[in-house]
Amino acid sequence: MSVTTPKGFVAAGVAAGMRSSGKPDVALVVNEGPLKVGVGVFTSNRVVAAPVTWSQQVVADGRVDAVVLNAAGANACTGPEGFVDTHITAERTARALCETGRDVSSADVAVCSTGLIGVRLQMDKLLPAIDAAAVALDGNAGTAAAGAIMTTDSVPKLTSLSRDGWSIGGMAKGAGMLAPGMATMLSVMTTDAVIDAEQAQQALARAVTSTFNRVDSDGCMSTNDTVLLLASGASGVEPDIEDFEQALLQASADLSRQLVADAEGATHDISVTVVNATTEAAAEAVARAIARSNLFKAAIFGGDPNWGRIISAAGTVPADVAPYDATQLDVTVNGVQVCRASGVGDDRSGVDLSGREVFVTLDLNAGQASATVWTNDLTHDYVHENSAYST
Amino acid sequence: MSVTTPKGFVAAGVAAGMRSSGKPDVALVVNEGPLKVGVGVFTSNRVVAAPVTWSQQVVADGRVDAVVLNAAGANACTGPEGFVDTHITAERTARALCETGRDVSSADVAVCSTGLIGVRLQMDKLLPAIDAAAVALDGNAGTAAAGAIMTTDSVPKLTSLSRDGWSIGGMAKGAGMLAPGMATMLSVMTTDAVIDAEQAQQALARAVTSTFNRVDSDGCMSTNDTVLLLASGASGVEPDIEDFEQALLQASADLSRQLVADAEGATHDISVTVVNATTEAAAEAVARAIARSNLFKAAIFGGDPNWGRIISAAGTVPADVAPYDATQLDVTVNGVQVCRASGVGDDRSGVDLSGREVFVTLDLNAGQASATVWTNDLTHDYVHENSAYST
Repeated sequence: MSVTTPKGFVAAGVAAGMRSSGKPDVALVVNEGPLKVGVGVFTSNRVVAAPVTWSQQVVADGRVDAVVLNAAGANACTGPEGFVDTHITAERTARALCETGRDVSSADVAVCSTGLIGVRLQMDKLLPAIDAAAVALDGNAGTAAAGAIMTTDSVPKLTSLSRDGWSIGGMAKGAGMLAPGMATMLSVMTTDAVIDAEQAQQALARAVTSTFNRVDSDGCMSTNDTVLLLASGASGVEPDIEDFEQALLQASADLSRQLVADAEGATHDISVTVVNATTEAAAEAVARAIARSNLFKAAIFGGDPNWGRIISAAGTVPADVAPYDATQLDVTVNGVQVCRASGVGDDRSGVDLSGREVFVTLDLNAGQASATVWTNDLTHDYVHENSAYST
Repeated sequence: MSVTTPKGFVAAGVAAGMRSSGKPDVALVVNEGPLKVGVGVFTSNRVVAAPVTWSQQVVADGRVDAVVLNAAGANACTGPEGFVDTHITAERTARALCETGRDVSSADVAVCSTGLIGVRLQMDKLLPAIDAAAVALDGNAGTAAAGAIMTTDSVPKLTSLSRDGWSIGGMAKGAGMLAPGMATMLSVMTTDAVIDAEQAQQALARAVTSTFNRVDSDGCMSTNDTVLLLASGASGVEPDIEDFEQALLQASADLSRQLVADAEGATHDISVTVVNATTEAAAEAVARAIARSNLFKAAIFGGDPNWGRIISAAGTVPADVAPYDATQLDVTVNGVQVCRASGVGDDRSGVDLSGREVFVTLDLNAGQASATVWTNDLTHDYVHENSAYST
């Protein structure tokens, strides 16, 4: 279950030696076709890393032949020189693929990087590793590729699912609560379904909106976040597009959930669901405000179903963004309605917060739309992980 | 130097016994006139505590005769019963003041509360304490009053300044990073200058905007935040209004700075200044985004002048809110320009973060406006303070 589960994909994960640990740090995913569809969704941060700028250009025509990914360096805030490094990386990848019998242009090679910001890539180590990755490409190496993009992840994140004759695979790394400058979330998903670039882009945008973009470990948005979808068409099966969108959503949700579960320093995965909002955007805005409240997150760490902090956070969302009556809020934590009509509800001592998962539901009593944002608690280990000096 | 420094004010701080420690928990500030001007600025949270709703009505006509403040209970999220409690509190205060020879209507008694959310006030203890406070009123008891509103504050926050024949005094408590549900910021400022309610309101709004509202310890906005200004006119001096506004700004800045310095769990006070923005609102939006970045705040705790996190946080502010070129950002931390043109600048090992104060300057190179937001670092003790269960 990985990016090589769907037919038409090969991958590799190799060690360039950029990590002090010597562990694999370069991954390569190649679409063998017959289709070479490739689309992407990128960080909305205005400060974007060189590989994001590059890859946005690559996917513009809906075609991606290969993705090269590296850990141990985000290549962000590295100026024009950093962009040149990314360009050289793509060129080297195309050349290495040509040398293994594939006809690939650098303009069809997406690049993803993760690691420290403000540091140039170790090109002398990266480039030979790209050659080695091209030689190592294999139809069963999806797991190796996923391992090579891990930063402080404790496990690789993998997914796959099969439908009537076609399948989706994927890998991901990251999601907040990571070591300094390494908060990047990267994901590559693959499918052998026969879909065109327009269908792929729409399906990916929809899936990301309600999965990856609803994971908010610590409110910090990376300069490098990238989610790519590659379609090979190798199954020869043209799926019903709604079925495909549903499947991609499921795969994205699976990877997102794994990111939350592995957030460093966290002791709880918290699902914040806002129901009965006027619009989904309103529900999401309120859910995100709660998910970003340090006071709320610290309370969950402390085993305290502190509903006052939940509705206080909800109260910071402007009325034009999320209309609701602030005296009519209901809060349920792990099944206990601790707050009713913005006042005291059932006995909060009945709330069991001993498990890893915490489910918070805020009922705005204002409409019929809902949204869920996943976050983590704020812990001593979060502070520790993110305050340790790293150069 | 307190609320009783200006002529025409008496105050008291007494123990109602609502705190388990038995320390003073009820404060009373009374304007003896001849003017009874009173204005206020309140939390912009939509979930507001009963005393805020009450006090907003009290100041609506520009007159406040007395302010009664209690710790050990925020009276927030307590429903209609909580509002009745506030009303009874004001009624009792007016009656007690009448019994000490003052002609006060409950409609001119502002109420401030701080403490846990979602818990009713202990009225059986609060009401007798109000009687005791009225009897204890004294022209030198401003410091006692300031002590009675402390929650997890380690010291009372006091200020005063004198000008040509008139003066300003003030007290405050709180400001984020406090124990569960106690993040409220309360302040009462007094003056014996001869000013009318309109002048007072404008001066207070301006002072709060660039002082109290620019303190952002943890991004969490309380349901109870209240800043009141009372003017007695007892000096008989009518100040130049610009002089008065400048003096009030200074007093507010002094109290705000004390709040930051006493934020629980913090090891650094961080001044985030954004310069050369297109507008002050743009500068403030960017400064606040940085001040709320957990990754940035944890880095400062760890002694790391991590400029990548600073410009990443800046990059999350939408372009229509703060126009700037994301490739042209300069960052200076404690005098060292660690980031130039969004890339690596001077050696960051030259940044000395051993002191309590940290000065971060982000130059947007986009205009001529600037703004400063004060915050604190994110520490183990912050998590500890805010995760300890309290009922």
